[in-house]
Amino acid sequence: MTRPINQQWRLAAHPVGLVRPGDFQLTTEPVPELGDGEVLVASRFLSLDPTNRIWASGAESYLPPVAIGEVMRGVGVGVVEESRNAAFPVGTVVEGVLGWQRYSRSDGRFLSRAVSYRDVPLERYLGIARHILLTAYFGLTEVAPGRSGETLVVSAAAGAVGSLAGQIGRLRGMRVVGIAGGPAKCRWLAELGFDAAIDYKSDDVDAALRRLCPSGIDVYFDNVGGAILDAVLAQMNVFGRVAICGLISGYNATAAQPGPANFANILMHRLRVQGFIVSDHYGRIEAALAEVVPWVDAGMLRWKMDVVEGIERMPVAVNKLFDGSNDGKLVVRV
Amino acid sequence: MTRPINQQWRLAAHPVGLVRPGDFQLTTEPVPELGDGEVLVASRFLSLDPTNRIWASGAESYLPPVAIGEVMRGVGVGVVEESRNAAFPVGTVVEGVLGWQRYSRSDGRFLSRAVSYRDVPLERYLGIARHILLTAYFGLTEVAPGRSGETLVVSAAAGAVGSLAGQIGRLRGMRVVGIAGGPAKCRWLAELGFDAAIDYKSDDVDAALRRLCPSGIDVYFDNVGGAILDAVLAQMNVFGRVAICGLISGYNATAAQPGPANFANILMHRLRVQGFIVSDHYGRIEAALAEVVPWVDAGMLRWKMDVVEGIERMPVAVNKLFDGSNDGKLVVRV
Repeated sequence: MTRPINQQWRLAAHPVGLVRPGDFQLTTEPVPELGDGEVLVASRFLSLDPTNRIWASGAESYLPPVAIGEVMRGVGVGVVEESRNAAFPVGTVVEGVLGWQRYSRSDGRFLSRAVSYRDVPLERYLGIARHILLTAYFGLTEVAPGRSGETLVVSAAAGAVGSLAGQIGRLRGMRVVGIAGGPAKCRWLAELGFDAAIDYKSDDVDAALRRLCPSGIDVYFDNVGGAILDAVLAQMNVFGRVAICGLISGYNATAAQPGPANFANILMHRLRVQGFIVSDHYGRIEAALAEVVPWVDAGMLRWKMDVVEGIERMPVAVNKLFDGSNDGKLVVRV
Repeated sequence: MTRPINQQWRLAAHPVGLVRPGDFQLTTEPVPELGDGEVLVASRFLSLDPTNRIWASGAESYLPPVAIGEVMRGVGVGVVEESRNAAFPVGTVVEGVLGWQRYSRSDGRFLSRAVSYRDVPLERYLGIARHILLTAYFGLTEVAPGRSGETLVVSAAAGAVGSLAGQIGRLRGMRVVGIAGGPAKCRWLAELGFDAAIDYKSDDVDAALRRLCPSGIDVYFDNVGGAILDAVLAQMNVFGRVAICGLISGYNATAAQPGPANFANILMHRLRVQGFIVSDHYGRIEAALAEVVPWVDAGMLRWKMDVVEGIERMPVAVNKLFDGSNDGKLVVRV
């Protein structure tokens, strides 16, 4: 039987700075026959996330680095086309670590049935897939919880995770201040119900935080690190909580990044600073979904998609996450 | 009635770098008559602690800075000599914020009856007073708990708090590695039952940590910050916990201190880094004392005293905490 032809982006070189086209190589080969317990997933949409840059870097992180020659690691959503695994019959819509490729063969690990939302078409699904929405949720639930009336600051607040984190903070009754780049993104934060937005490209972030967080900052959901983390640390209240979700300001750095100069505030204000990745918390995923799915179904969360057409554009498109040019959750339609 | 004459060290200038004699001024005045609800405490031993340097600095910290002209803030142990407060009859041995002075007048706030240990003379009491022993205890209980079999690293491990933290770690069944300055202190750590000691003055700390913590580091009880914090962060295990008890390496700094260059490991290894001071946890003091008092009474904890004679030596003696010349809990006999 003729096998489907796969296209796969393989890592050719660990990027230095922004990704360059030669860092990845597009290869073509037939999909192998499935073994017992395996499924073949046809990718529909592949997610581009800042963490792709970490995985490509060659450095140890929270996962082993992608090796030269390997298919690039990435999350996506697709449909089971062949199955020798009863848990995933043909036609099942799944999400998971599909890789940067048209077809992925899986034994079911790192694969889940897509969450059952009521009215979310596949084209918009990755905006609230597990690794996005539950990152925002667990960050504000398990890692850096906040109470009604407390002040939450979110960086990269117009990003896929940040915009949801801010909305969850509002649902919890927090005062939410978002930090984003440019007036369009800041206007969008206002539409989402954020109490205030800071444009780090034109505002004095220290002064804006003082003005917009008159009672100080209780919770910081950080996606960026760097100078903005330092500015927020300086204004954290006693017993404040910081969720380190991402440190995107350093992901393309070619030199060692300095640590936060205001680190001593962790002692002086007895802050709790905790790094996390979403899968650490999947032990509590059922309770999490029971809370977030009704929010989505009731239209209480909003999100935007930025859809790039064609798998061949993946390596170039990933840079949009770092130059601020993406507008909504960045995905590639395969 | 003739009033006792008080001697008081008042802050004359916020120190820059190490404390200089002119930063404090010794003044003399009669003790005022007590008001209703007040007690007069005669200081017996005054505690010199690294945090004194923070309080003198003029910067906001976890408490307001001591103002120029005010009696220097400090903890001590003494005896109630006059009382108009039923909670503290004459003769009661008390500990608390007595200040750098012979006599303190108090309304009872920041004052407690000394802990009732069986065989601890007043001369040795400050070595295991609340603000020392419970700092070690809460740091390893509430802030950065560890399990039997995990690896604990303690910095300033021969110090008053660090030496107790390490011993508590051993009582919990942890592998305990202490970092201290010089062979004599490292030998003492061995006598206390530490599994290993690193002399940061002569050892390569990175290499020594790799050798002595072959399973990585699960809990770090940090008293120093700076380069040693950076070295430990690099070797923390996934889900490691860091208690920031002190950042003594920066207390005498005259320029801004860089943050830890390995800060990104907080994300990559999903560490929890939390600053604390002992009084944050006094809500659970009864349970804490119920656990630690039997340890002391049974001789399961050891500690050394470094007793400086005479209140007039306080401003000079405090520097011993920062040049490493103290040998045991530093106190002044009044």
